[in-house]
Amino acid sequence: MTTPDPRLSINQATVKHADLATALRVTATAGVQAIGTWREPVQEVGLATAAQMLTESGLRLSTHCRGGFFTLPAGPARRAALDDNRVAIEETATLAAAGAEGSTAVLVLVAGGLPEGSRDLLGARERVRDAIGELAPDAAAAGVTLSIEPLHPMYASDRCVVSTLNEALDIAADFDPAVVGVTVDTFHIWWDPDVLSAIERAGREGRIATYQVCDWKTPLPADVLLGRHYPGDGVIDFEPMTRAVLATGYDRDIEVELFNEDIWATDPLEAVKRTAAGFASAVSPYLTV
Amino acid sequence: MTTPDPRLSINQATVKHADLATALRVTATAGVQAIGTWREPVQEVGLATAAQMLTESGLRLSTHCRGGFFTLPAGPARRAALDDNRVAIEETATLAAAGAEGSTAVLVLVAGGLPEGSRDLLGARERVRDAIGELAPDAAAAGVTLSIEPLHPMYASDRCVVSTLNEALDIAADFDPAVVGVTVDTFHIWWDPDVLSAIERAGREGRIATYQVCDWKTPLPADVLLGRHYPGDGVIDFEPMTRAVLATGYDRDIEVELFNEDIWATDPLEAVKRTAAGFASAVSPYLTV
Repeated sequence: MTTPDPRLSINQATVKHADLATALRVTATAGVQAIGTWREPVQEVGLATAAQMLTESGLRLSTHCRGGFFTLPAGPARRAALDDNRVAIEETATLAAAGAEGSTAVLVLVAGGLPEGSRDLLGARERVRDAIGELAPDAAAAGVTLSIEPLHPMYASDRCVVSTLNEALDIAADFDPAVVGVTVDTFHIWWDPDVLSAIERAGREGRIATYQVCDWKTPLPADVLLGRHYPGDGVIDFEPMTRAVLATGYDRDIEVELFNEDIWATDPLEAVKRTAAGFASAVSPYLTV
Repeated sequence: MTTPDPRLSINQATVKHADLATALRVTATAGVQAIGTWREPVQEVGLATAAQMLTESGLRLSTHCRGGFFTLPAGPARRAALDDNRVAIEETATLAAAGAEGSTAVLVLVAGGLPEGSRDLLGARERVRDAIGELAPDAAAAGVTLSIEPLHPMYASDRCVVSTLNEALDIAADFDPAVVGVTVDTFHIWWDPDVLSAIERAGREGRIATYQVCDWKTPLPADVLLGRHYPGDGVIDFEPMTRAVLATGYDRDIEVELFNEDIWATDPLEAVKRTAAGFASAVSPYLTV
């Protein structure tokens, strides 16, 4: 087994069925140095315990996933969503402080889709901006960066009305780059004819909070949420996007987040090793400037 | 039954399992005035016979579907694809001449996906441009407009590397607008944050060869090609895009092209009537400037 790339971070969703202890253990055992945590497994053990476990693991925190889902119109459900995001901000700050040196306090945000029965896409997008405006002071106070993640347009109606990197940057533009950034995930934006110029812009504007690599392959599975593949197993050429991200000066960890039933059915240590191997061959060659 | 909108055209794919005679009959019987033909059912009866049948139906031709699939690298397969597109150009000219007054000679082009084993998205896009350059003189000589159709980004790898209206316009920009235009299909571009400005641009540059309306709904079916719905049955707000298209001066027919197993299993006359009803309620209100 080769040593994993020192910049690789395993997003916990890649080993979805592992609890936090297992996820930390297999990540460290595989020689990976960083992890992106998810809220549910952290809450399962409690935040304080999770933070202590992260410290003991010796891993860096790259992101905490995820906040968002705030396209609802004004009302109790929207207020509850915003309050839950405030809890997520606190979790992120606590975990980042507990992680090894080089940890980053980044909360990934998935905007949410059209509310039930609504066709008002522009309105939903405006509410995303409004919600981030409400959360930005909390994030700033906690030293956390809210990272808007554009999701593939096939999720625009039911999961995330933010569909392109430029759109995420347009929303972020109203805010301090230390407080509101963007997630650059190859799976979601590889098809975009403007992707390289958008990455360059994201760097120029100081917005790349996290870079994530994940491959695309067709046919898509019946549940299109679950069609994410190990780097190198699909059709994405990781060179241009990775070089563009590096050229902006991006020096953080690089996450791999895989939603895929087959990968979830794999032994988690094995899944982490395969992720590391895919990363080493499909991404690492482009990490030297 | 209300009279169908006089601008509605039924794309033959909506009644996929009907032969040409049936498609023409049910379209006319329902009181629809125009049709978009597909190559296979036309070739089944032969072009001359198809043209005569179209004349006898009294219907206008709005488009002929479809050419394209020219992302292959240089070689015999690419030459064969280009030759087949030349046949499609001739079919389009013949059918448009045979259709009722107001027919338009528009050949819809679906660019094609990444060639097997390739990760070179930029190269595939360049080959689309090259192919259109090769076909443009033939189209001009035949009086046919090649209409580049951007397809939803979920098809970028296996069906169409042209994913946004602006990208289609960038390709078209090298050519005479009478010869190379674009297809504006709501299903494919509704999610695009730039869709309204791109439609305005398409109009300004004289490129809207055909406007097509079709709804989006989730969850997507297992085969994501087949998730197209009657206007009004999904989440698309047809008002902004339709008004934007009309504001450009677009005065042609408006097609509905539905790939959907349930609709294909419906009696074709009934499917046409339902299409007309959906169009009347979800689109017609925005056709008065």
